Amino acid sequence: MRLTIFPVIMCGGAGTRLWPASRQSFPKQFITLLGARSTFQETVLRIASNRFEKPIVVANVDHRFIVAEQLQALGIEADIVLEPERRDSGLTVAIGAVLGRRRAEHAIVAMLAADHAIDEASAFRAACVDALPAAEAGRIVTLGIMPTEPSSAYGYLAPGDLLADGKARELAAFIEKPSQERAVDYIAMGGLWNSGNFLFRADVMRRQFAMFQPAIWDAAEAAVEGAVSDLDFLRLAEEPFRLAPKVSIDYAIMEKTKVGAVLPAGFRWTDLGSWNAIWAHAERDANGNALSGPCEVISVRNSIVRSDDAIVTAVIGLEDVAVVATPDAVLVAQRTAADELRSLHATLHGNGHVAATEHRRVYRPWGYYETVERGERHLIKRILVKPGARLSLQTHAHRSEHWVVVKGLAEVTVGDVVQRLGENQSTYIPIGAAHRLVNPGIEPLEIVEVQVGEHLSEDDIVRLDDIYNRARR
Amino acid sequence: MRLTIFPVIMCGGAGTRLWPASRQSFPKQFITLLGARSTFQETVLRIASNRFEKPIVVANVDHRFIVAEQLQALGIEADIVLEPERRDSGLTVAIGAVLGRRRAEHAIVAMLAADHAIDEASAFRAACVDALPAAEAGRIVTLGIMPTEPSSAYGYLAPGDLLADGKARELAAFIEKPSQERAVDYIAMGGLWNSGNFLFRADVMRRQFAMFQPAIWDAAEAAVEGAVSDLDFLRLAEEPFRLAPKVSIDYAIMEKTKVGAVLPAGFRWTDLGSWNAIWAHAERDANGNALSGPCEVISVRNSIVRSDDAIVTAVIGLEDVAVVATPDAVLVAQRTAADELRSLHATLHGNGHVAATEHRRVYRPWGYYETVERGERHLIKRILVKPGARLSLQTHAHRSEHWVVVKGLAEVTVGDVVQRLGENQSTYIPIGAAHRLVNPGIEPLEIVEVQVGEHLSEDDIVRLDDIYNRARR
Repeated sequence: MRLTIFPVIMCGGAGTRLWPASRQSFPKQFITLLGARSTFQETVLRIASNRFEKPIVVANVDHRFIVAEQLQALGIEADIVLEPERRDSGLTVAIGAVLGRRRAEHAIVAMLAADHAIDEASAFRAACVDALPAAEAGRIVTLGIMPTEPSSAYGYLAPGDLLADGKARELAAFIEKPSQERAVDYIAMGGLWNSGNFLFRADVMRRQFAMFQPAIWDAAEAAVEGAVSDLDFLRLAEEPFRLAPKVSIDYAIMEKTKVGAVLPAGFRWTDLGSWNAIWAHAERDANGNALSGPCEVISVRNSIVRSDDAIVTAVIGLEDVAVVATPDAVLVAQRTAADELRSLHATLHGNGHVAATEHRRVYRPWGYYETVERGERHLIKRILVKPGARLSLQTHAHRSEHWVVVKGLAEVTVGDVVQRLGENQSTYIPIGAAHRLVNPGIEPLEIVEVQVGEHLSEDDIVRLDDIYNRARR
Repeated sequence: MRLTIFPVIMCGGAGTRLWPASRQSFPKQFITLLGARSTFQETVLRIASNRFEKPIVVANVDHRFIVAEQLQALGIEADIVLEPERRDSGLTVAIGAVLGRRRAEHAIVAMLAADHAIDEASAFRAACVDALPAAEAGRIVTLGIMPTEPSSAYGYLAPGDLLADGKARELAAFIEKPSQERAVDYIAMGGLWNSGNFLFRADVMRRQFAMFQPAIWDAAEAAVEGAVSDLDFLRLAEEPFRLAPKVSIDYAIMEKTKVGAVLPAGFRWTDLGSWNAIWAHAERDANGNALSGPCEVISVRNSIVRSDDAIVTAVIGLEDVAVVATPDAVLVAQRTAADELRSLHATLHGNGHVAATEHRRVYRPWGYYETVERGERHLIKRILVKPGARLSLQTHAHRSEHWVVVKGLAEVTVGDVVQRLGENQSTYIPIGAAHRLVNPGIEPLEIVEVQVGEHLSEDDIVRLDDIYNRARR
């Protein structure tokens, strides 16, 4: 019998160390860091093969429309399971195993990270297929990567004896992020990097959780049991989810299990965990610089410079730096800085900088809006509505809005009046008026919205009717 | 007889080396680099004393409303003389001397740079008074500064014998920007920095030009002769001005003259010629960092970080850098980079970056406008109109405009209709309609303008009537 793999793609990362490109509202796995697609999309494409079943994507509820849209752009279907909050990878893996068992007690589950870069999709698939016999035999098989440097940013897998299938080895030890000195030793002993991608039989993982983290397993079962369908999404039950212990799969299971195995994988891999990792993976010019967007460099070497299209970024006389310029936040750092970005994030957040977690562009199921300027008593937004999409019927208690259509066709409801506006037409929505914006056309609709009022916040919205079921949150 | 000094303030600098804070459209001397006022304003205030007559400000025609507004903010009157283009300091000094001679053949003219920082105004005035006897005796008296380092960015003045007045000395040699090694030698020999501020008798300077640069003098006389009054400005005649040789006063006269003198001055001075100079002059924290605007630094030393209010700028793990973040341009440089900024400017200009020379905020006699967002077929501007001010009556051939009043009171003319709009009201100006915006109120008027059209450029404007006489350019 030919075994298939049940892939579960984990989209829970926050990408804090890639600020300001990555932010909580639109994190790392969904942005284009290298090439034209997000790493989430690359991950989905990588397993588009008949050895893999329809994937399950586990994502934060806030990112559901991003996931749906990025899948749609690929023309690939997946089941989208929504986590109500970030609760670390232990719970996510347990949920993957629970969902796997619903298909078959012995289903082979592959937990895949959505935020890594892997060069050769075929080599990745081959590694998964090579891992199958060991997983089928009851092992949790991790894919190990040949280290290229004694990095202290990765976990290390110490391979033991060759298993009966002749491909995977015993996992003799699992070491989470050792010091660089220790990393040198581990590499000398044949240690491999933990790629964070692993395969297992659903019932095997269940037994490991029962032994080491029963509370997580119970929470996962209850969260799946109580899950409700909402449009194309499966919403996990909130209460059991929120009560689960917050532990990574590495600490919860991998460090403790006696059924671990490691399969040396043949693909080039990076977790893109820092600007340095992206620089190392990106195309670089003769001076070792990875440049993107409008930028000019003079006497600059071995640096990464990323400039937003609306900005020109100039760098002079520096080496080994990372410069990332966005419309509302700029990072200038030593290229190898990584942990400092975590503390930076905490500082920015603590000091109330919106740009710590939010992008100026906010994606919605109907398109996106972008804050263009915030004044004392006004706020300017540019809004893009996808063809056929409709915003919720809503009211605002503290602001009125002026809409100018700059592209496409709009159907605007204000009170009882429905009117169509073409390019260069405008309308006004008084405080308190129920209103709705629809794009009845076949091209994207762009409007400029000028809000005027005392209190200009996304909180000031009452949704009376919403095809995307957002009245609930 | 108690002599008075006839001050001429030179505002011709471009401040290229302070990009992106300083740009051609609003250069260095008019921005607030240190403290709350521009160096131009500080220069004007410094000579507000009964030893100085009403100042003449010589500025580029493009900056006339900035000069007028900054003077008005100080409540100080000056005569504003407009140069039609940048033509270097030789011509500007000749114009200062020509204007001085119009007051009195032997008038003592003080040529003052508008873009330097001087800590003690009283010490500056004392130096000018000390220089008077030598100037009266026929010398061109430069104010020399005690060097604090062998800088190659400044000119050096070699003092010779003490003159009869007992204060100033012969100018034994004038050396423009020597190498650092040579600078060490000059300092050892008692050399002083050339502060670029100097005093002379108008007829003395005339004779020097007659000997060394007669073409410049003739051009200056013709430019003043043909000048026309325009509102509160004196516009120099364009043709003779544009035909004058483009030479700095240092090369034109100071290197050659036999009547030079140097007065050692007792004030602290910097030309703020680079980010490094500003860092050196600014207040710094315990880590040696000069920080302004919303910024966070981690493990950063001896650096200058300037962040626009709408941006958060984070710097990690770097020393001796200059980071300047504005909404449309970001500079990251070694702190001591200076000449590279000139070549950067040329590159940015050559590559068509608007931000090379223009700010997003553009000052006009009636207030300012700021480009907030530029789309394919729309442009969003925020416009501020000062109380009582009125824009020109104008038409556009290629765009229509939507105006939303977000603050204050507007009087809007469209065709034959005049209407008043309060906060939160809007209007529409069709393509081709003659229109005018006036602020009839007593507080600033703010409107958001959304332009829609194929061709969105400042060129698309026909001024039918303008109280600021801008129909001519």
